[in-house]
Amino acid sequence: MDTMNDRRRTAVLIVIAALAWNYLGKEKSSSIRIATAVDYDPCCEFPCQNQGVCMSYADKSYSCDCTNTGYYGVNCTSATVMTAVINAVKPDPEYLHTILTTDLWIWKVINNIPFIHDAAMKYIFLSRGDQVDSPVRFESDHPYTTLDAYFNETYFARTLPPVPTHCPTPMGVAGKKELPDLDMLIQKVFVRRQFLPEPHDTNLLFQYYAQHFTHQFFRTNYTKGPQFTKGNGGVDVSNIYGLTERQRRALRSNVDGKLKFQIINGEHFPPYLKDVPGISMEYPPHLPITEDNKFALGHPFFALLPGLFVYSTIWMREHNRVCEVLKEQHPHWDDERLYHTAKLIITGEVIKITIEDYVQHLSQYKVDLKFKPQVVHGTRFQFHNRINVEFDHLYHWHPLIPEGIKVEDSYYSLMDMAFSTKSVFTHGLDAFVKALVTNRAGKLTSRNHSPVTVPVLKKMLENSRILRFQGVNQYRKKFNMRPFRDFLDLTGDEELARDMEEMYGDINAVEYYVGLIAEKDSPSLTPLTMVNVGGPWSVKGLIANPICSPHWWKPSTFGGEIGFDIVNTASIEKLFCNNMVSKCQDITFKVPPGTL
Amino acid sequence: MDTMNDRRRTAVLIVIAALAWNYLGKEKSSSIRIATAVDYDPCCEFPCQNQGVCMSYADKSYSCDCTNTGYYGVNCTSATVMTAVINAVKPDPEYLHTILTTDLWIWKVINNIPFIHDAAMKYIFLSRGDQVDSPVRFESDHPYTTLDAYFNETYFARTLPPVPTHCPTPMGVAGKKELPDLDMLIQKVFVRRQFLPEPHDTNLLFQYYAQHFTHQFFRTNYTKGPQFTKGNGGVDVSNIYGLTERQRRALRSNVDGKLKFQIINGEHFPPYLKDVPGISMEYPPHLPITEDNKFALGHPFFALLPGLFVYSTIWMREHNRVCEVLKEQHPHWDDERLYHTAKLIITGEVIKITIEDYVQHLSQYKVDLKFKPQVVHGTRFQFHNRINVEFDHLYHWHPLIPEGIKVEDSYYSLMDMAFSTKSVFTHGLDAFVKALVTNRAGKLTSRNHSPVTVPVLKKMLENSRILRFQGVNQYRKKFNMRPFRDFLDLTGDEELARDMEEMYGDINAVEYYVGLIAEKDSPSLTPLTMVNVGGPWSVKGLIANPICSPHWWKPSTFGGEIGFDIVNTASIEKLFCNNMVSKCQDITFKVPPGTL
Repeated sequence: MDTMNDRRRTAVLIVIAALAWNYLGKEKSSSIRIATAVDYDPCCEFPCQNQGVCMSYADKSYSCDCTNTGYYGVNCTSATVMTAVINAVKPDPEYLHTILTTDLWIWKVINNIPFIHDAAMKYIFLSRGDQVDSPVRFESDHPYTTLDAYFNETYFARTLPPVPTHCPTPMGVAGKKELPDLDMLIQKVFVRRQFLPEPHDTNLLFQYYAQHFTHQFFRTNYTKGPQFTKGNGGVDVSNIYGLTERQRRALRSNVDGKLKFQIINGEHFPPYLKDVPGISMEYPPHLPITEDNKFALGHPFFALLPGLFVYSTIWMREHNRVCEVLKEQHPHWDDERLYHTAKLIITGEVIKITIEDYVQHLSQYKVDLKFKPQVVHGTRFQFHNRINVEFDHLYHWHPLIPEGIKVEDSYYSLMDMAFSTKSVFTHGLDAFVKALVTNRAGKLTSRNHSPVTVPVLKKMLENSRILRFQGVNQYRKKFNMRPFRDFLDLTGDEELARDMEEMYGDINAVEYYVGLIAEKDSPSLTPLTMVNVGGPWSVKGLIANPICSPHWWKPSTFGGEIGFDIVNTASIEKLFCNNMVSKCQDITFKVPPGTL
Repeated sequence: MDTMNDRRRTAVLIVIAALAWNYLGKEKSSSIRIATAVDYDPCCEFPCQNQGVCMSYADKSYSCDCTNTGYYGVNCTSATVMTAVINAVKPDPEYLHTILTTDLWIWKVINNIPFIHDAAMKYIFLSRGDQVDSPVRFESDHPYTTLDAYFNETYFARTLPPVPTHCPTPMGVAGKKELPDLDMLIQKVFVRRQFLPEPHDTNLLFQYYAQHFTHQFFRTNYTKGPQFTKGNGGVDVSNIYGLTERQRRALRSNVDGKLKFQIINGEHFPPYLKDVPGISMEYPPHLPITEDNKFALGHPFFALLPGLFVYSTIWMREHNRVCEVLKEQHPHWDDERLYHTAKLIITGEVIKITIEDYVQHLSQYKVDLKFKPQVVHGTRFQFHNRINVEFDHLYHWHPLIPEGIKVEDSYYSLMDMAFSTKSVFTHGLDAFVKALVTNRAGKLTSRNHSPVTVPVLKKMLENSRILRFQGVNQYRKKFNMRPFRDFLDLTGDEELARDMEEMYGDINAVEYYVGLIAEKDSPSLTPLTMVNVGGPWSVKGLIANPICSPHWWKPSTFGGEIGFDIVNTASIEKLFCNNMVSKCQDITFKVPPGTL
């Protein structure tokens, strides 16, 4: 016991000393110039650690700017006392991830004691938020900070700046002069040999949720280039309501705040495209699609796949349902106010469901994730978000897609389903939803990519090379993970490690997305790097939404207590229950027990 | 002494009790519905105090949502214990303003002890920042929160929502059914009878600084309507470099990062418009302006007045000077990097000069205002800004403009100067700058508006009515000032009070801008309400700039220590000294002593 007390006393003394040191000793940015013997830009080696900024000089010397990193020294490798104390206390991310995904008594305690749970959520929101530059510093056209990165919001944000074009290799100095041939790379690392089922019982309702949700903010502007976006900085529900005011106006019924709908087989569905001037949907040009198969939706792609069409229909019904609830409370409100207030409630529902159902399943954390934005009010958390282009790439989750889906007694291959919503009407929406719940998704890993979606993958990998993404190990470091030591450390699979070593030569030359997918399994749905890199962008995007900020997060924003309550009790189950004819039957993101 | 200690102990106990209370007692939003006997929307009376949000019901009852206001009760008028303690400590804004503008020994102490001065700046930045909704909640098309207010950045932000169109009077319930006739109002309150000189020795260099600086973010989009803007959310230096990438490209020389220039009489000036494809300037359509009088500048208005042209020339020269400094440090940098880094340095200089020279003079504060963004790092300060349309209106400072200007031995009337830059070349830039320094500005008050600029004023007042601005007393309350009791309390002038009472009938019906200008004198350049309403928007806009945020505010962002040093030592004097042929001669925002 004495030893325990001694230890505590020492710990307290260290913290006090650290605080005093931090207060007294002003952190100096090290502008020490280091001479090098290389004949290239020494910053191509990324010598500055811990987010230090490298600056090279004409004589091939360089210096690291360590300001505000918590480190100092030539390469920003010496921790300040404060940082050293924090590092000593902070658990290793890999270990933390294991803890978070293991059923332990501590989670029961945390989940059940509100003020401890609040502290846990505050820690999660803040620590993840801190890892995202806000305001954003980089875009993809310059390997250094520009004012445009911030003010030109048609740029996607960028977490790590591009590798300068004058560097010896595409990854700086590591690896070969040329990156692997894409077709070979795709064959060896990505293409599905046989379907690998998702081991956490993930179903297609989850897969389509991911696709439907993320397309509101992943909107690459291919006309301008892969570094540009047509979208806004987060959860703007533009996938439901439309991206422009013209589209939004077109989809409104102008009665009681509701969206336009039509009745097919006695059920509410989105209107036909031909009935909605002002909306244009994107269909492949040469396919004969009949007019009763074309719908007007908030997102131009969402009539291409029946799963996306199902979500669009359900959210349209939910919006109209919420309008009715509001109208009952506020019979004197006009169409405009009902519409805008319902939209705010829908935004809240989307964030609630995404955190508590979707991310909870995705992460497999045993701590209950809760949508409690109030825990970060008054803290350094920044309520503004921009979408990082690396987040868009990370979210290419095509391995989740199986080769086909069984609906009632029919089997549809991927190509049977593409470009048509017919199957929804053949079986009825409720039967189709049931199929989404009962069909298992694919495992999010290497060698599990359906050949059908390879063109999308190839385009994305081409873009990542045009955008000169840094290697996966640089992203590991940026998000406080140790870099992979070698190819086996990355893959955990000898054959894959051998193949990749042959192609890349150096572990530090492995491309970002390739590394994310090729990594060995983790207890989550995705490998560890993908969770720990995507997590901060995800949390930041959800909690930085304006509705979460102190002046917005109150009942009146949502039309009063009843609207606020809809937000605060939303779930994926209720969303479907409230909007299916047959009401709900075991709506979750997991296939029923015993499903193959 | 014992009494002192007792008091201290009591104060500490109160604070501890308040903290405990705040922690334990969860703040409840009051959803108590209050029946009323009125036959209109009861929210038109603005019954909810302290930023409580009013919601009315079909039966003409209402409730106030007091969440996160620090108050509770039916009309959010009862302070929580924490708020009561803060209110007891916080000085009255009017008293604080007097203290801040009076020469006291305390300012010498604060100005000279760095850590106390840091604390003072932190308090100023945070307390002012807290008064600005961030993220923004309102735009001008809806009297309630909409998601568009945030995501549609073509809207100007709005601090107080518009008065609902269904209210009994344009100001809610106060005042007459019709607002005063604009021409009469302008005659009685605004038009200059005789020139009133600015009593703090303010000169025209100051007046043109205000105009040049603010036009980068006040860019009403008249094509779409007065609620929309073409600009970005703050100091984006678009007044120097251009608003669109096309304009910015057009103004670049593509050599050593520099902007295009030409040599006239041996001095560097912006290029002629005819020599710069891609730039269009706005000239009145029917005026015969010769080609050697048309220049290509970052802002389409800035060749219309010689004072704005002078600032454009000086900033162009400063940018090119900074490029040379950077090039010497980094001879291997290309045009692109020199340009973008110089632009970041210029942004820093603009903010530094605006705070330390411009706002210092404007406020007449005796505490030294310093550009130290690091004091708010790690706090709740939000590094994102949007321009409020009320800020644009507030900044209509035409009373500063005298009827004419004396340059060397010539006198130019306002109309002699308009639409021409000739006078700059007739006298030479240096002589013109000297004239700007030595000519006194007008006093920013009622009845001091040159008849020449009345059309601008009238348009703005019309817009404030289209946008249904709330009355000046509502803005007083929003910014923690007590509302004016009556017209004499507002004006301090009996004749003006009588005139205004006749027109408005009720002090709570006085329009926003009218009240700002009609207010009695304060120790600052503007009346008190204008300082205390404009101050928060101003501080927020300057310190929320991305360059002030923790990841940006470091030497490497500005090309290294030398660039960072240019930012940290910038002043209005150096800006001109470094860029005039005759070097500097007493460049300040004040006319020389003894000037009439």
